[in-house]
Amino acid sequence: MDKPYVLGIDIGGQTAKCGIVNARGEVLAQSIMVSNKHDDAQSFITALAATLQKLISDSDLTDQIRGIGVGAPNGNYYTGEIKEAPNLSWAHEGNVPFSSMLSEAMGGMPVALTNDANAAAVGEMTYGAAKGLKNFIMITLGTGVGSGIVIDGRLVHGSTGAAGELGHAILYQHGRKCSCGREGCLETYTSARGIVQTYCELKGCPVTPDITSKMIGELAHQGDPIALKTWETVGDQLGLAMANAVTFSAPEAIFLMGGPAQVGEPLLRPLRAAFDKYILNIFSGTCQIRMSELRANEVAILGAAALLKMK
Amino acid sequence: MDKPYVLGIDIGGQTAKCGIVNARGEVLAQSIMVSNKHDDAQSFITALAATLQKLISDSDLTDQIRGIGVGAPNGNYYTGEIKEAPNLSWAHEGNVPFSSMLSEAMGGMPVALTNDANAAAVGEMTYGAAKGLKNFIMITLGTGVGSGIVIDGRLVHGSTGAAGELGHAILYQHGRKCSCGREGCLETYTSARGIVQTYCELKGCPVTPDITSKMIGELAHQGDPIALKTWETVGDQLGLAMANAVTFSAPEAIFLMGGPAQVGEPLLRPLRAAFDKYILNIFSGTCQIRMSELRANEVAILGAAALLKMK
Repeated sequence: MDKPYVLGIDIGGQTAKCGIVNARGEVLAQSIMVSNKHDDAQSFITALAATLQKLISDSDLTDQIRGIGVGAPNGNYYTGEIKEAPNLSWAHEGNVPFSSMLSEAMGGMPVALTNDANAAAVGEMTYGAAKGLKNFIMITLGTGVGSGIVIDGRLVHGSTGAAGELGHAILYQHGRKCSCGREGCLETYTSARGIVQTYCELKGCPVTPDITSKMIGELAHQGDPIALKTWETVGDQLGLAMANAVTFSAPEAIFLMGGPAQVGEPLLRPLRAAFDKYILNIFSGTCQIRMSELRANEVAILGAAALLKMK
Repeated sequence: MDKPYVLGIDIGGQTAKCGIVNARGEVLAQSIMVSNKHDDAQSFITALAATLQKLISDSDLTDQIRGIGVGAPNGNYYTGEIKEAPNLSWAHEGNVPFSSMLSEAMGGMPVALTNDANAAAVGEMTYGAAKGLKNFIMITLGTGVGSGIVIDGRLVHGSTGAAGELGHAILYQHGRKCSCGREGCLETYTSARGIVQTYCELKGCPVTPDITSKMIGELAHQGDPIALKTWETVGDQLGLAMANAVTFSAPEAIFLMGGPAQVGEPLLRPLRAAFDKYILNIFSGTCQIRMSELRANEVAILGAAALLKMK
């Protein structure tokens, strides 16, 4: 009989979230580990494997795990590599054969890898609000900005396996310096860090670790004018980027997820206004902006798990 | 027995090119009519039908035509409509049910419609340099700037049937006024008109009808510094837009066609440099910039004809 459970892992710049997923798409058990303390990929993978083994044995599911699905920045579906992901602490290693390394650390378990936003898109399509949609885009706002693109019901991997990096579409030529080495990427404006930078620029204060996008969200809900102006700016920038994405694939919806998206109306009101303003007339009214309907801490885990099943 | 021939039509802002295509993808006979002299769609379609009937009877192929494939600005594959195409003289009519009107004018012949750049992409994939490629983008430079996007071997139509409008991705927020009513679209910089405008801005002269992108190409080959600077600027802008497109679908090639692309090295040299500069590191070296290998006057005719066969 088939082993009934799959491990789903969502690797972000700060944490790696791991879960055991059953055939109905329920996350039975979860574990979180920090992901930014490891100088090299091998030590990260060793720690990750220990976390996974503990999760499995704590759940009494030894020998019942079919395989592992992983969503990670710059994760490549075809090659199983993570390539120079600027938000991971071991990016300097270049191309890391992540799938084979993790498989080896886990006693030969099969591993399917894609980028974290692709995993979220698969999760939303398999279990969430995108069920039944054939053309949509998932945009994840977090440490970075990721995207997963679905066209005709299929995740877009492109010729290299690494398609769907709208966070690194250049919004402003000669704009802010990005962690990828270039300038003006969408991510430098609408990631958590980008939002903090905009707030600090508007306020005329230095960027410090105690200023977070979450805090700026709370200030906006209290009516703070600089916080509100920050979200207006971010909404305008994201709305422009989304309107540009619509010219490419004419999706029926663009989903948002991640911490900064949780702020709600202070972001969504200017975002919708900007999207309506910047969208090409032939696409007016054809694409909805929606929020992910899966729990934020589960969507990429579920997607990563679903990805393994597709493989 | 099946009727062996297909009519392919390539409708642009200035002319409509019509051809009879055989099963091997050869254009047996061609005819060109002006497309910018008609105030309403019905009179254009009446004139187009007369042109087609003459082409058929001159070729002695009456009753041997299976149907008509049409590539036109804003042509919608799903609905058969041409929707507010800003470069056509009857754009003010809004949604024109082009396929059904043309079919009626041609005695009920089946009609397949898509946008002109999509037709070119299908032509290149079926008969040209993109044969065998699964992921590529065709960009057409002309009166406007169009695009046809192929992912996993299939043309991207999106949820509405009108996907693939990279000419109307906004390159510069608050940039040049576009015929679509918005500002800063790629088309306002890299279409024939956009190139003329850049040249005139650099030269400090008014835009007049006798200045053409073709002339600016000839001046560049003669070493004219303002003409060379114009193509450098256009190459930089197009390279940025192409690099952004790569973040979406990671194509293995981007093809260029259309008048301004024919200038060659004065455009291609700065274009390649800009593309290398703006491309996200994980995609470096994975996407070639190539020229369409089909004859410029045939590619969209062939593509439109191939489109009908797919239907």
